[in-house]
Amino acid sequence: MTNPSNDRVLNFSAGPSTLPLSVLEEVQRDLINYKGTGVSVLEMSHRSKPYDAIIRDAEATLRRVLNVPSNYAVVFLQGGGTGEFAASYLNLFASKSVRAKQAKLGRALSCDYVVTGSWSKAGMKEVQRLGGHVNTVIDGVDGKYVGVLPVSQWKLGKPEETAFVYYCDNETVNGVECRPETVVDAVDPSVPVICDMSSNMMSRPIDIKRFGAIVAGAQKNMGPAGVTIAIVRDDLLERDDDPAVLHNLPSVLDWQYYNKGGSMPHTPPCFTIYVCGLVFKWVEKLGLDKVEQLREERAKIVYDVIDSHPEFFKGPVNKQYRSCMNLVFNLPTKELEAQFVAEAAQQNMIQLKGHRSVGGIRVSLYNAMTIEGAQAVAQFMQSFYDQHRQ
Amino acid sequence: MTNPSNDRVLNFSAGPSTLPLSVLEEVQRDLINYKGTGVSVLEMSHRSKPYDAIIRDAEATLRRVLNVPSNYAVVFLQGGGTGEFAASYLNLFASKSVRAKQAKLGRALSCDYVVTGSWSKAGMKEVQRLGGHVNTVIDGVDGKYVGVLPVSQWKLGKPEETAFVYYCDNETVNGVECRPETVVDAVDPSVPVICDMSSNMMSRPIDIKRFGAIVAGAQKNMGPAGVTIAIVRDDLLERDDDPAVLHNLPSVLDWQYYNKGGSMPHTPPCFTIYVCGLVFKWVEKLGLDKVEQLREERAKIVYDVIDSHPEFFKGPVNKQYRSCMNLVFNLPTKELEAQFVAEAAQQNMIQLKGHRSVGGIRVSLYNAMTIEGAQAVAQFMQSFYDQHRQ
Repeated sequence: MTNPSNDRVLNFSAGPSTLPLSVLEEVQRDLINYKGTGVSVLEMSHRSKPYDAIIRDAEATLRRVLNVPSNYAVVFLQGGGTGEFAASYLNLFASKSVRAKQAKLGRALSCDYVVTGSWSKAGMKEVQRLGGHVNTVIDGVDGKYVGVLPVSQWKLGKPEETAFVYYCDNETVNGVECRPETVVDAVDPSVPVICDMSSNMMSRPIDIKRFGAIVAGAQKNMGPAGVTIAIVRDDLLERDDDPAVLHNLPSVLDWQYYNKGGSMPHTPPCFTIYVCGLVFKWVEKLGLDKVEQLREERAKIVYDVIDSHPEFFKGPVNKQYRSCMNLVFNLPTKELEAQFVAEAAQQNMIQLKGHRSVGGIRVSLYNAMTIEGAQAVAQFMQSFYDQHRQ
Repeated sequence: MTNPSNDRVLNFSAGPSTLPLSVLEEVQRDLINYKGTGVSVLEMSHRSKPYDAIIRDAEATLRRVLNVPSNYAVVFLQGGGTGEFAASYLNLFASKSVRAKQAKLGRALSCDYVVTGSWSKAGMKEVQRLGGHVNTVIDGVDGKYVGVLPVSQWKLGKPEETAFVYYCDNETVNGVECRPETVVDAVDPSVPVICDMSSNMMSRPIDIKRFGAIVAGAQKNMGPAGVTIAIVRDDLLERDDDPAVLHNLPSVLDWQYYNKGGSMPHTPPCFTIYVCGLVFKWVEKLGLDKVEQLREERAKIVYDVIDSHPEFFKGPVNKQYRSCMNLVFNLPTKELEAQFVAEAAQQNMIQLKGHRSVGGIRVSLYNAMTIEGAQAVAQFMQSFYDQHRQ
């Protein structure tokens, strides 16, 4: 396969992942002297006027693209999903409403985890590490991360005993993608739903007002690694005056602290936010509905090959919950999987190996992957099948 | 003033701060296709071979440049100084040795803070926020951040009652720079010294083995904002098996978790670490002794002007503790200060305004500032003096 520009390859990495070429070209052009300021964004004071415009513009663009209601804070943080596993729990338990509910109950509230894969499980484990009480609503389908059990089989806690319900909208490792409505419809409206959307935020419209908080690392559809976005309903930022509320909540995980400081109570990851802002603008130009249409189209191109040869491309995930972002499957043997990855790389298609914890093949198709890129990998799959079918 | 390359200005920002032009040029050159990999480092999987080489090389270079002993871990984190304020306290109180000492004492150990400016004060406040017991060893000189009181006036806690002694080696806001030996000589060797070297790490050789841990945000002498470096003596990473040890320590602040995962237990701020690695190589090529010589030389060029007209350039800091990184002074009136900043900007010298909490003028002269840059600002100061002297 020849490559259209500058010998770039098709990058199917699950994250950090491919970025729009036009964004990279703009970053390159402005790298040494950003728009006549005489400095690079890499070395620009976060208190300078040009940087303030960059971060405010990034936030405003994200708000427009995702249609974020005005009663939701948007903050840029650091520490990725793992930081937000802890932050979600610690911020909620520092909030006025959760504390009042807990005082009423007279004992610790529990945290409901809808476990559909490795990342929701990791979120739950972090809360256990911190001494929180968790309730496993589901743990995959009979312990396997292949879909989402029907809500009738969920073991949700009682609303008056539950601080929040947590789930991961797209499981990057396992290729399981939820339907957000399924979760928010199932949960009592008095209980905030906290969602990790690290790997599918900005790939389709979402009804934010149904969530307590949405958190996401940027390095899939939104930008480079090193910045984490939290969208938080403002009542969850309310606190008691008692300073002991903050004993377990380091500033660096405190959503309110970042919100009050306009995401800059201290130095933010300036350059990373700048690149995210450019990606947000790229998405805005396309329009989020178009982005959603393209995501379905790309995924269909690859799933069509899988579904044509289900005995060869073995997708473990139930069709209803197959991810449009991370398409996972196994080949008949491990040797064939290794050969698939190696031959694809020779044809300039990289990062197709499944996550080390589950093996197999994973094709990640984020926003910046072109339709042509999806077609190229689908063609390769078809020809690999033709060569190796039994 | 004409500018040597590409219309870049002289950037005296206190951080994020000027980077070596050769580093920026290399970043720009490789931005879209890093060394023939076909991808940008902005979109490169952190689990790929090229990225593994980048981060391992960055760590190895830092170890060589700073002569880090083999019994010290080097980890790349996120969250800046503020993250490490909490991390220092939480990691130490999770360590086997501090817990054993506390068990022996039968009550909470206290944390000794040598407060010499805004940042050591902020570190202390974070520990108070988290419910820690702090002991103020000194609080500036009679409450003013103008130097370091003689050790004979310090109120160090008893070693058997103290978890650690914390100080900030260079106070970026106040322009106070410690002599590390002063602190480590004053502290009982059984008590670990934790040092925030955010704004002067890699500006001179340091005797790391005398410290328990050294932490630093990168965005002064070492790279762009978004990565934090911790150098930690390995005995402080030892833990009891009791999981309750970790109840207060979120993974994202846990030095051991990062060390075990080679700084990549989860996605690191890939691109920022890459740029830091290039800066480390730039420093290595110069040599740290030369870097120290240049830092003294740059500072002398500016301090000479200040000292020639002490009635006009009023430096608040005692000469012995004046920072070579952040040179702060006041002019006779606020109007003159505003005029100074504005006229300098017209001559392509930016970010000379003092920190908003203290006002005045601040000239930050980090590693990447050239001698010519220091001369330019010194000349400007002299001519400003000539115009406005009484």
